[in-house]
Amino acid sequence: MRTDRVEKIINGMKQNNIDQMIISDPSTLYYLAGKFVAPGERLFALYLDTQGGCTFFMNTLQTDYAPMAEGAEIVWYSDSQDSIKILAQKIRPGATVGVDKNWASSFLLRLMAEVDANYVLSSRIIDYIRMVKDAGEIQAMRETQAVNEIVISEMFTYVDPSLTEQKHHRMLHEMYCAHGADGYNIIGVVAYGKSCGYAHHKPDGTTPEPGDCILIDAGARLNGYRSDMTRTMFYKFVPDKMREIYEVVKEAQITAMDAVKPGLRFCDIDKIGRDIITKAGYGEYFTHRIGHNIGIDGHEFPDVGGANTMEILPNMTFSVEPGIYIPGLGGVRIEDLVATTENGYECLNKMSKELQVIKAD
Amino acid sequence: MRTDRVEKIINGMKQNNIDQMIISDPSTLYYLAGKFVAPGERLFALYLDTQGGCTFFMNTLQTDYAPMAEGAEIVWYSDSQDSIKILAQKIRPGATVGVDKNWASSFLLRLMAEVDANYVLSSRIIDYIRMVKDAGEIQAMRETQAVNEIVISEMFTYVDPSLTEQKHHRMLHEMYCAHGADGYNIIGVVAYGKSCGYAHHKPDGTTPEPGDCILIDAGARLNGYRSDMTRTMFYKFVPDKMREIYEVVKEAQITAMDAVKPGLRFCDIDKIGRDIITKAGYGEYFTHRIGHNIGIDGHEFPDVGGANTMEILPNMTFSVEPGIYIPGLGGVRIEDLVATTENGYECLNKMSKELQVIKAD
Repeated sequence: MRTDRVEKIINGMKQNNIDQMIISDPSTLYYLAGKFVAPGERLFALYLDTQGGCTFFMNTLQTDYAPMAEGAEIVWYSDSQDSIKILAQKIRPGATVGVDKNWASSFLLRLMAEVDANYVLSSRIIDYIRMVKDAGEIQAMRETQAVNEIVISEMFTYVDPSLTEQKHHRMLHEMYCAHGADGYNIIGVVAYGKSCGYAHHKPDGTTPEPGDCILIDAGARLNGYRSDMTRTMFYKFVPDKMREIYEVVKEAQITAMDAVKPGLRFCDIDKIGRDIITKAGYGEYFTHRIGHNIGIDGHEFPDVGGANTMEILPNMTFSVEPGIYIPGLGGVRIEDLVATTENGYECLNKMSKELQVIKAD
Repeated sequence: MRTDRVEKIINGMKQNNIDQMIISDPSTLYYLAGKFVAPGERLFALYLDTQGGCTFFMNTLQTDYAPMAEGAEIVWYSDSQDSIKILAQKIRPGATVGVDKNWASSFLLRLMAEVDANYVLSSRIIDYIRMVKDAGEIQAMRETQAVNEIVISEMFTYVDPSLTEQKHHRMLHEMYCAHGADGYNIIGVVAYGKSCGYAHHKPDGTTPEPGDCILIDAGARLNGYRSDMTRTMFYKFVPDKMREIYEVVKEAQITAMDAVKPGLRFCDIDKIGRDIITKAGYGEYFTHRIGHNIGIDGHEFPDVGGANTMEILPNMTFSVEPGIYIPGLGGVRIEDLVATTENGYECLNKMSKELQVIKAD
């Protein structure tokens, strides 16, 4: 157990008048105890109490998970016992009890029936702690993104008229695994030509045609932390219109990223990038926020969007990824990750953003 | 919308004194409306009312999902609105409101704060309806399992000393896709030799050695329905001990499956298979229930286990999959799917269960 991190949560609970907390989110459990759990339908939770108490509730079929609880108490239950009745014994009637936002309603409703307490959502307390990374986490982000760069660079070399978006996308599994990342659990968009006209295209049977934009947005987990990166290239040649769009997106990405520093607000970064795209006449085609925080999860709190007036702090990791998507024509997105420093930022990507043509004639 | 199925749920609500229901489970929404949704953090729910009312709540970013709601009302909300406040307008104070077991606590707690009603779990009402399949569903199960047989048969031909369990397992993605199934969303165990000594081994870097058992347990979704099947073969030759174990498992599988008919209890099927294994001296190594129901989900209600005294009904689909797993040595599992008929069962598998040696010298 990372007792320093548990301590931060206990402090957050005290500041928010939460007496007890039930943590079930697998990513937060990884953050605190260094292992990803997948307990399925069974209860797996960490209970914290500001009056003292740090207890895991585990099923006796899950003894593999016992080592992660070193330093904490473990309460075991078997399939023939009611796990919620056992958890309920820890809950003080009348206490304010925090629960994670995605905890299954089946557990919550049964616990509510057992103990009359004040149940509240408490995920935000943890979000605020996890959004600022320590040195080890930032190093993990550098390493996972370095692998991602290798994989994405290689992915562009495979573009071929015989390869569909879907098949190309599935190559990511093998490639991440070859580099030690978790190739079973990946995100990704592989889109060619008109498919790029929608920001979140799902790979389909499309094959590349000369002049197509080739958009690859992908990431995977390495040592617990997620990578994420997008590049857009062109197959055989670049149509003039797409060259113009590419240069607008590139300018927006570089300018917005270069502005990143503590003290600025997240919405300022979005505005800097968006203004460039709007001024070039493509504002209506930049259909999403400019970025999102990232760490153990691919999308973490908060986001880099126009409505987020929070100030950027040192040691945050997030994406800067403007895009222009024109239905029926194509689209371009360029995405880097940054880690903020005391006075600015470190870009976690090295891969060029200059316009590139694949297999030019 | 499948109004016949909605009607069944409304009847179930009336029988269980549930006035209103909020359905969020993607598989149940597929069952009712023929499309899988993945709304992420956003509210996506179907609301039913025994006094009349069938309403989808969708985000304005999710217009792709509108066609599935044909015949129902749609209430749209935008990201700038509080979706739960909008849903709350439908909830009658004091009513009994059923919610799905996996509905996120964030939604439930916010709804509870908006409307004082009697919130209860109602997934079981739907489970009882979905556990009996109609003719179209059984045909879908035949088709998905037929593809699964082709894929699993082919998988065994690739066993090779250069191939790790992990790499072999990842081939499933491509193979299911090649047959039109959803290769992105698969289940599976690929285990060699000692890896087979644990029933739920996660594929790792193990490569096959002569004399190893080769266990492949896999399934994918085709036209909305899940396949699932296990075969165990041997690489190069069969050690005598493993031959003995294989024949015990085969006898248990065939005998238990042949007993399947409406009127028998699920626990009887488990006992018939388990008794054969226990009598052969391997009872302690058969570490799981003999099967599970299956349909849109890989594991559906109920299960084919020793504690389930429910009677089997016609038109249920479930697995019969005894196994023997000896730590440090190896293991064997054989799994078929059945669809029950009025008087017995139809086996959805054709693949031989005779002991087979791959690449025998």
